[in-house]
Parts: sequence; structure tokens; C-alpha cells
Amino acid sequence: MTATIIDGKAFAANLRAQLAVEVASLTAKGQQPGLAVVLVGEDPASQVYVRNKAAQTLEVGMKSVEHKLPADTTQDALLKIVKDLNADPSIDGILVQLPLPAHIDTQTVLETIDPAKDVDGFHPMNVGKLATGLEALVSCTPLGCLMLLKDKLGSLAGLNAVVVGRSNIVGKPMAQLLLAESCTVTIAHSRTKDLPAVVRSADIVVAAVGRPEMVKGDWIKPGATVIDVGINRVPGKEPGKTKLVGDVDFATASAVAGAITPVPGGVGPMTIACLLHNTVTAAKRRRGI
Amino acid sequence: MTATIIDGKAFAANLRAQLAVEVASLTAKGQQPGLAVVLVGEDPASQVYVRNKAAQTLEVGMKSVEHKLPADTTQDALLKIVKDLNADPSIDGILVQLPLPAHIDTQTVLETIDPAKDVDGFHPMNVGKLATGLEALVSCTPLGCLMLLKDKLGSLAGLNAVVVGRSNIVGKPMAQLLLAESCTVTIAHSRTKDLPAVVRSADIVVAAVGRPEMVKGDWIKPGATVIDVGINRVPGKEPGKTKLVGDVDFATASAVAGAITPVPGGVGPMTIACLLHNTVTAAKRRRGI
Repeated sequence: MTATIIDGKAFAANLRAQLAVEVASLTAKGQQPGLAVVLVGEDPASQVYVRNKAAQTLEVGMKSVEHKLPADTTQDALLKIVKDLNADPSIDGILVQLPLPAHIDTQTVLETIDPAKDVDGFHPMNVGKLATGLEALVSCTPLGCLMLLKDKLGSLAGLNAVVVGRSNIVGKPMAQLLLAESCTVTIAHSRTKDLPAVVRSADIVVAAVGRPEMVKGDWIKPGATVIDVGINRVPGKEPGKTKLVGDVDFATASAVAGAITPVPGGVGPMTIACLLHNTVTAAKRRRGI
Repeated sequence: MTATIIDGKAFAANLRAQLAVEVASLTAKGQQPGLAVVLVGEDPASQVYVRNKAAQTLEVGMKSVEHKLPADTTQDALLKIVKDLNADPSIDGILVQLPLPAHIDTQTVLETIDPAKDVDGFHPMNVGKLATGLEALVSCTPLGCLMLLKDKLGSLAGLNAVVVGRSNIVGKPMAQLLLAESCTVTIAHSRTKDLPAVVRSADIVVAAVGRPEMVKGDWIKPGATVIDVGINRVPGKEPGKTKLVGDVDFATASAVAGAITPVPGGVGPMTIACLLHNTVTAAKRRRGI
């Protein structure tokens, strides 16, 4: 292995420590930031996420509010809760955990969240402001990837960046962020012809496709920086055991790349840290700081 | 010359003829679409644009409203007019001609326009919806480019598209539209390294940089489709005369490309035609059609 390992876990811990200082300062002025998380239904993965979010929210000293609603909650009841949180001055960030049950229109719920409290950055107003270069709240995972890249590389201007995957949550906002940093940005996806050749042109590769170990070492330009957003559970070596792998084949890619994020411990820890970061950002903007 | 010429003037005339049929059908039901154009100040180019827009609006049978305001109009007075147009049921499209005088905050004005009437597609809600794959009103020039490309090539899926230029008005929405058509999309710009090589990888080139004849023939992959958004006035052959040229060096590029838009007569006429198209689209959506 030649690549430097990008330690997202340590970076996220450091970011949370910095946020704790800011939160303490705001709290001392009677301006403690608050994050509300709304969970509808019993999805086990969502329950774990929400528990982790709440724990880390408290850990940095913010107010944490949880609304756990039964799976048969009506859309109107959910919208009422969102509107109440919009109006609640002690709440700076609102996160409705996805996926929502099928009888609820997700887009309607997301567009009901006050864009100034939309710490997931999914409201079209925030997506549009990001795309236009205006002050926005930015989707947490791509924001975390950008922080890791800038920490590793400094200025990204002029670098060739290839984003593999075009989801609304990662790929597309990632491309906008890299473009704002003056990268030459290529968005590749399932319809891309000769994906290995496209990836091989990249100084920066962001893989966000959800396919275990798809990006191979011989797709990577020697010395490139590789950010692996994938978190895929696959069978482990021992029968009945599983393990987590990314969208990048770490064993071969780390032999070629200049720097690479591991899975786990790379991008993963950045997502919640950036959620907290966005909540502090929203709190400061709402207080005119 | 080997390239087929993409006749935007003819395409736009045909689009306007189709729109005239739709407008007549709506008008017969008492639902004539209406477009309001607001011009602040005496900018000569803006005056020409507004005159052309109004003439073509009437030509397809729509209601045309013009507000010509003095250069010293206050922002509040302008916002009042926009709000009145938002509330006016006979108006389906509102266009505030840019640039606005320096004492007016352009973004505040653009964000005051009802997104459902924002036929320029500049409101962050429309930018965000375009980027998320939701129903949006899309910036006119890139929409016109996409119409020409689909007319020429049919499906664009899997093609390599390079957009040169990252403006909010053309480059960035163009990239979103091409991505939605499943192109592999690269956004290049002034910071791009080895731009000729990047352009040479493209099956589709969209040049939108505002630099006369910058893209040369030897940058073009043989057979590629070239869309030239540039409209640059440069000195002509005779002293004191000027001529219009694009961002592409037509003489050399047309010898290599498979198809190319000329300047003038390519993308230019599509912009107003797409403005009318957006107004009819907005009118139909507002009427639930």
C-alpha cells in the first residue's frame, strides 16, 4: 500500500470538538443551538442513525429534540410537527429521517421545512442556492467529503474531479461543491461508457454508487485522491459473518492512490459531524452572527 | 466543410408555430396565457431584447404586458410591481430584464417572483428543482440548446458532453439538463487544465464562455455535435464594420464536427422561443392542464 489514509474518524472528532467550543460560546449568551430529529416508523437502520445523531448532538452541547412517531402517522400530522418546529425559536435545525412510509409524500415534507432550518440541505431552495453560488445549507455527506479533500489537498482549483454517481443526496451536490472550488468536474454514472477510462482521468475520485468494491485499483490514476462514500455490507470471511466495504476496492486502489478514505472510518463519521456543523451554521445565521 | 448546420432559426420558428396553436386552443377556452416583461432603465441592448420579446409574445397570440420603469426606480417600487404581477391571474410568466441598476439587489428581485411564473428559471426554487429532477421552469438558453441536441441526435444517453463555461444562466443548468438525459457530463471553465484535450473527449460540446472563436477545429472530435452559445461582436473585414461570431471558430470547427450551430441563426433564436414555451408551460401548469 502506498496511499495515505484519510482518517475521517479523527477529522470528525476534531470538528465536533471545535463545534463544542462554538456551542458553548453561544450557550453562554443564552443562544444554545437546537436540533430536532423526526422519525416516522420502526426502520431499524433509521433508529440507529437517529440515536447516534441525538447522542452526538448532546455531546457537543446542543439541545436535542426527538419526535418518534408511529408508522401510521398521517402526512398532515407530520406536516403539523414540522411547522411547529419551523415556528419554535429554540430549534435551529430540523431533520426528517428518510425513508418515510409510502403513504407520505417525501417531497412535500421536505419542502415544508423552513429552508433556514433545513440542515440536511434537501430543500429545493438550498439545492438551488448551492447551484447558484449563494449561501446555502449543504447536504451533509458531500460537505464532509469536501472538508476531507480541502484538508488533504488545500486548493482544489484546476484539478480534474470525477464524481461517480448522480444521486440528489451525494453525487449532484458533490459536483456543485467541487465546481465551486474550480475543479473541472465530470459526473459519471451507470450509463457512462468506459467508466474505468473516465475515472483514470481524475485527480480526485468521489465514488458514491452503492456497489461494493466497484472501483478497482487499475481505474485510479497514480497519486490521485480517492473519496469512498459507499457503505456496503457484504459476507465476511467467516461463515455467517458480514463486513463493511466501500464502493472502492480498497486493497488494489490503496496501492495506486496518493490518498484514500477507508470504509469504515472515512466518510461515514463525517456525515453526522457535518449535520452538527450545519446546525451551528444555521443557528449563527438565524442570530445574525 | 463537412458538418451539418443546425438551423436554430427554423427550429425556433417551428416551435413558435406550435406554441401559437396551443395558445389559440387555450384562448378559445378563455385561458389566454400572458407574459409580463419588466425593464428598469434605458440600457439599449435590453430595450432591443424587450421589444423583440414583446413582439414575439404577441405573434404567438399571447397577452403581452410591458412595464418600462425609469433607471431611478426604487427597489421597493419594483418589488411592488413584481408582487402585483404574482397576484394577477392573467399573467403566467414574469421576466425582469437583467441587468438591473446597481442600487437594486437583483437576487432579492428574482426571489420575489412567484416560482410558478418564473419563466426565466432563475429563482432558486426552479434551479433546485431542476437539479433534483423535479418539475421546474428551466433557463431558456440551455433549454433551447437541449431541444436542438435532441432534435439532431435523438437519445443523448451515454454520450460524453462537455460544457465549457459555468455561468448560472447557461453552463450550470445546461449540465443539469444533459445529466438528466444520462450524458456523462464534464463542466470545464477558465481554470480547466488542457481545455483542448477535455473538449476533444466530447461527443457533444456546448460552448458558453463569451470569448470570440475560442474553441478551435482541432479541439473537436470528428463527428461531434457542437452547440455554440456565444454571441460576440467583433470587427468585420471592412473598416468600421462589425460582425457577430460565436465562442467556436466556425470555419475550422465545421470542417471536423458532425453538426454545428451557426452564429447568428443557431442558439440565438431559441432563447425567446423557449421563453414563450416556458410561458405556455407555466400557463398550463397553473391551469392544471
